[in-house]
Amino acid sequence: MEINPYNSPGNVAFTIPPRVSRKTKPDGTIVNINRVEVGGSEVVVIAGPCAVENQEQLFETARAVKTSGARILRGGAFKPRSSPYNFQGLGEEGLKMLREIRKETGLPVVTEVMDTRMVELVAAYTDMIQIGSRNMQNYPLLKEVGKQQKPVLLKRGMMATIEEFLLAAEYILNQGNEQVVLCERGIRTFETCTRNTLDLSAVPLLKRLSHLPVIVDPSHGTGLRWMVPAMAKAAVAVGADGLIMEVHYRPEEAICDGYQSLNLDEFAQLMIDLKKIAQAIGREISLPKPSKG
Amino acid sequence: MEINPYNSPGNVAFTIPPRVSRKTKPDGTIVNINRVEVGGSEVVVIAGPCAVENQEQLFETARAVKTSGARILRGGAFKPRSSPYNFQGLGEEGLKMLREIRKETGLPVVTEVMDTRMVELVAAYTDMIQIGSRNMQNYPLLKEVGKQQKPVLLKRGMMATIEEFLLAAEYILNQGNEQVVLCERGIRTFETCTRNTLDLSAVPLLKRLSHLPVIVDPSHGTGLRWMVPAMAKAAVAVGADGLIMEVHYRPEEAICDGYQSLNLDEFAQLMIDLKKIAQAIGREISLPKPSKG
Amino acid sequence: MEINPYNSPGNVAFTIPPRVSRKTKPDGTIVNINRVEVGGSEVVVIAGPCAVENQEQLFETARAVKTSGARILRGGAFKPRSSPYNFQGLGEEGLKMLREIRKETGLPVVTEVMDTRMVELVAAYTDMIQIGSRNMQNYPLLKEVGKQQKPVLLKRGMMATIEEFLLAAEYILNQGNEQVVLCERGIRTFETCTRNTLDLSAVPLLKRLSHLPVIVDPSHGTGLRWMVPAMAKAAVAVGADGLIMEVHYRPEEAICDGYQSLNLDEFAQLMIDLKKIAQAIGREISLPKPSKG
Amino acid sequence: MEINPYNSPGNVAFTIPPRVSRKTKPDGTIVNINRVEVGGSEVVVIAGPCAVENQEQLFETARAVKTSGARILRGGAFKPRSSPYNFQGLGEEGLKMLREIRKETGLPVVTEVMDTRMVELVAAYTDMIQIGSRNMQNYPLLKEVGKQQKPVLLKRGMMATIEEFLLAAEYILNQGNEQVVLCERGIRTFETCTRNTLDLSAVPLLKRLSHLPVIVDPSHGTGLRWMVPAMAKAAVAVGADGLIMEVHYRPEEAICDGYQSLNLDEFAQLMIDLKKIAQAIGREISLPKPSKG
Repeated sequence: MEINPYNSPGNVAFTIPPRVSRKTKPDGTIVNINRVEVGGSEVVVIAGPCAVENQEQLFETARAVKTSGARILRGGAFKPRSSPYNFQGLGEEGLKMLREIRKETGLPVVTEVMDTRMVELVAAYTDMIQIGSRNMQNYPLLKEVGKQQKPVLLKRGMMATIEEFLLAAEYILNQGNEQVVLCERGIRTFETCTRNTLDLSAVPLLKRLSHLPVIVDPSHGTGLRWMVPAMAKAAVAVGADGLIMEVHYRPEEAICDGYQSLNLDEFAQLMIDLKKIAQAIGREISLPKPSKG
Repeated sequence: MEINPYNSPGNVAFTIPPRVSRKTKPDGTIVNINRVEVGGSEVVVIAGPCAVENQEQLFETARAVKTSGARILRGGAFKPRSSPYNFQGLGEEGLKMLREIRKETGLPVVTEVMDTRMVELVAAYTDMIQIGSRNMQNYPLLKEVGKQQKPVLLKRGMMATIEEFLLAAEYILNQGNEQVVLCERGIRTFETCTRNTLDLSAVPLLKRLSHLPVIVDPSHGTGLRWMVPAMAKAAVAVGADGLIMEVHYRPEEAICDGYQSLNLDEFAQLMIDLKKIAQAIGREISLPKPSKG
Repeated sequence: MEINPYNSPGNVAFTIPPRVSRKTKPDGTIVNINRVEVGGSEVVVIAGPCAVENQEQLFETARAVKTSGARILRGGAFKPRSSPYNFQGLGEEGLKMLREIRKETGLPVVTEVMDTRMVELVAAYTDMIQIGSRNMQNYPLLKEVGKQQKPVLLKRGMMATIEEFLLAAEYILNQGNEQVVLCERGIRTFETCTRNTLDLSAVPLLKRLSHLPVIVDPSHGTGLRWMVPAMAKAAVAVGADGLIMEVHYRPEEAICDGYQSLNLDEFAQLMIDLKKIAQAIGREISLPKPSKG
Repeated sequence: MEINPYNSPGNVAFTIPPRVSRKTKPDGTIVNINRVEVGGSEVVVIAGPCAVENQEQLFETARAVKTSGARILRGGAFKPRSSPYNFQGLGEEGLKMLREIRKETGLPVVTEVMDTRMVELVAAYTDMIQIGSRNMQNYPLLKEVGKQQKPVLLKRGMMATIEEFLLAAEYILNQGNEQVVLCERGIRTFETCTRNTLDLSAVPLLKRLSHLPVIVDPSHGTGLRWMVPAMAKAAVAVGADGLIMEVHYRPEEAICDGYQSLNLDEFAQLMIDLKKIAQAIGREISLPKPSKG
């Protein structure tokens, strides 16, 4: 273990855990999600609905985000909801729908797991396992996904320090699974205008301290649909290896998080704008060629 | 559901979940942990080591805290540690030691569970199941303890609002288990002198909004051994139904959290001081009579 | 300068500024506000309205809080208000009313100053000068009150660390004025149920690090009238040298902060309760004898 | 006054103060600082040392930042320092140096004022008056700069909500001065790796709610020299109307804030990179043509 390489007033020196540390592995890790590479020169966009609600909603959204340039599909089958009276997800039925649209579109799928007992099931259906914000310090769960062969999307806890975030990733790597993507998704602060405060400084910081790829979630990070495009652009400019965003074919009818979901047109326009930012910093977003017209 | 009963600038109105709401049940709930009642006129003290380390450490500490007036024994067998390289607890071996000293002293035992797969095991060995701070929003775990017949000690997440805390408790009650004790244990703020900021205002707030008993953990709430007595006294004065504190027969040798553990003499003196505060507000702490001379 | 004497995970070591440090002066400072001593064995209560509104309001409130046991009168003539459209205080007219009721009741008076140009004026009318939370790092103002002969009540900024708070006090002592009382009044956190999070751990921390007296403001610290008594009791139990509370003869008609002001009866009852807590920890609150039957 | 136009969970609805509200003035305000316009299509860069230390340091730095494309010069003559034992600035002597280099380079100058008694003096020497973070709620000071004819740079308090920030600006506009530029400079959170957490979401939020221009300070916002370029790029991508950055001809010798100051070469390179981002979002940064071969 080593002392962290930056030094300024207000810094708490801490040791970077060895397996995630960039000192151990100076070249950045590239995580391969069924042939989509996160951590290379491409900025990879993950998009899809907050929750899988039904076939039409999922399929329509998935087809559209693919057409606009998304490389990976997101969608929740098991939903961690603050209230027990809110929709808790479709469970395995949702996983089956994800598998079906994955086959049709060829898009790899990422979905969340919350329970150690469900890890194998979720791993069987998907290409990437998500550990959500509320479970960033659920150590038995981290150990269990660390035993899988599937890539892991690890979201920062909403009140987790950078040190704790890296230690959580270390739990996964320590079990033998080195295919981990870190995701900044906003931290809790005193400010209440936004759902969270998206901490974009976490991106250069994590990339300096660790060899793992880092992506950003501007949907949960802001909680405000109209603000997602601006923050997505900033995330690309700051050096993120990718983005994960909530997109819904009818946000106003979404069962959860509709207020922070882009509609299909907004997403299509955003991809065009993001491509320009990526180019300005010497990276790529490759958009599909229009099929007709 | 109803609107919360207080109103001032900076308040976000929210609905109190129905099962935990005091409106549903105006009389406070008394939680019975193997004949020790939390929520009545007695201020109940839970004490013991952070982690069960070995027989001598556990037994010596348990006997001493009982002599000084503790009514329930705490001790961790499964430990949630930020780093995978730290001591993770003795597991079932630790549970067996807890059962043995429980038999000898007659003290009911509370210990933490982190994994849904371990809930039945932990429930079989102990009198009260603890859900730790990092798992306050581990919903599968909350549901699982909600199905048990054992009382639950639910600690507030270090990032959890009062609303989220009450919703987490609702998950447990909603499964049929109404024997829940809430525990304020410090929240994360910008201040770094203390490990957390112990939010004593949570006590009157939770007691006003909910019928569940509320206790305070000044050990994790401060992270500073010398500060625990002052904050424990404040917690009794503010109206807490109990305290949970880390006590170790040799804090300087503790494997974890020694810097915040009282030694046996400090704990004995504190119990005498707490009794006076309890009396000053019309409550009780009944100390055992000295057995000899 | 020296390293701070506590040590635990999460602590940022910092140097305690020399003039406020307890190492420089092991015995606690007693601040004398026109013969009322703060920092001795007595727990001193400061009470009065948020703002001086008119003669009746001020005089009725002042007479009543004196009868109930307050030792110092508070009341704002210059009010720092978030909005320019809110009542900004009566200014010098308010200072004159304070002087008049001070003469009648014999209660020393504390009032806030916000502008370097007003320091001499305020000092001329009052017994103690208050630096409010928003001005804790207004260094020209700190220097100016440091040049006065009047005791200073320095409130912790809502965003200030303990280190910054001590450094702010050092600015005053460094100009020659050692009559400074520190006041914890709540910090800003993510929790929105309360106006601020009253950080009672600041009391033992400040008293360990510094020789200056420390008092607590549960009115601003909670923003909730019904919660003030519980937190006031906790503040006495934790070891505060005094309290400052908003009391109004008709809170529902108050121009500012009525929702956090006690009425006269609530204050009278609270003083009786506080006396019991003070006794339980070996300190005193001396209540006036009832004048008649 | 009106209700704010966004709506999502966790939002506290508040009224936007009328003079700063975009509803009152749908077109954005352009603030003119001696012919440099902030709020138009150009992204304006303000650069210079934290503090004016001496003639050589100021002049060398000023000439270099002009050559690299800075449009306004910053430099502190009165410095708000946490400790009374730190360098407090050169005062009027520093103002004179600023005036001299302003004449030579033609760069408008911005400098901070902390004391109501100094406002006229500072206004006489400079083109724009800065209100620092610690004085964002120093209402007498806001009123005083509101009476001047000079543009004002108002920095967000490190723990100020968006509502409080807008209300602080309203204090200035309410006195008749509408030439106000808002500056996001990082807020205080639990994270300690960075000096502050730069809240880039404040930019789209402020621009939606208010007609005033918004700039970003990535130097104070991160406190880390190596991180400034990444966050500066993100700030341009998110839509900021400008940047203010600390640049020093010899950062390692700087009296204050050297650890967060760019050196001259880093700044020159950054300007080239920022121009590309600006173009990618349809805005401009016009760099001077190299004067010689």
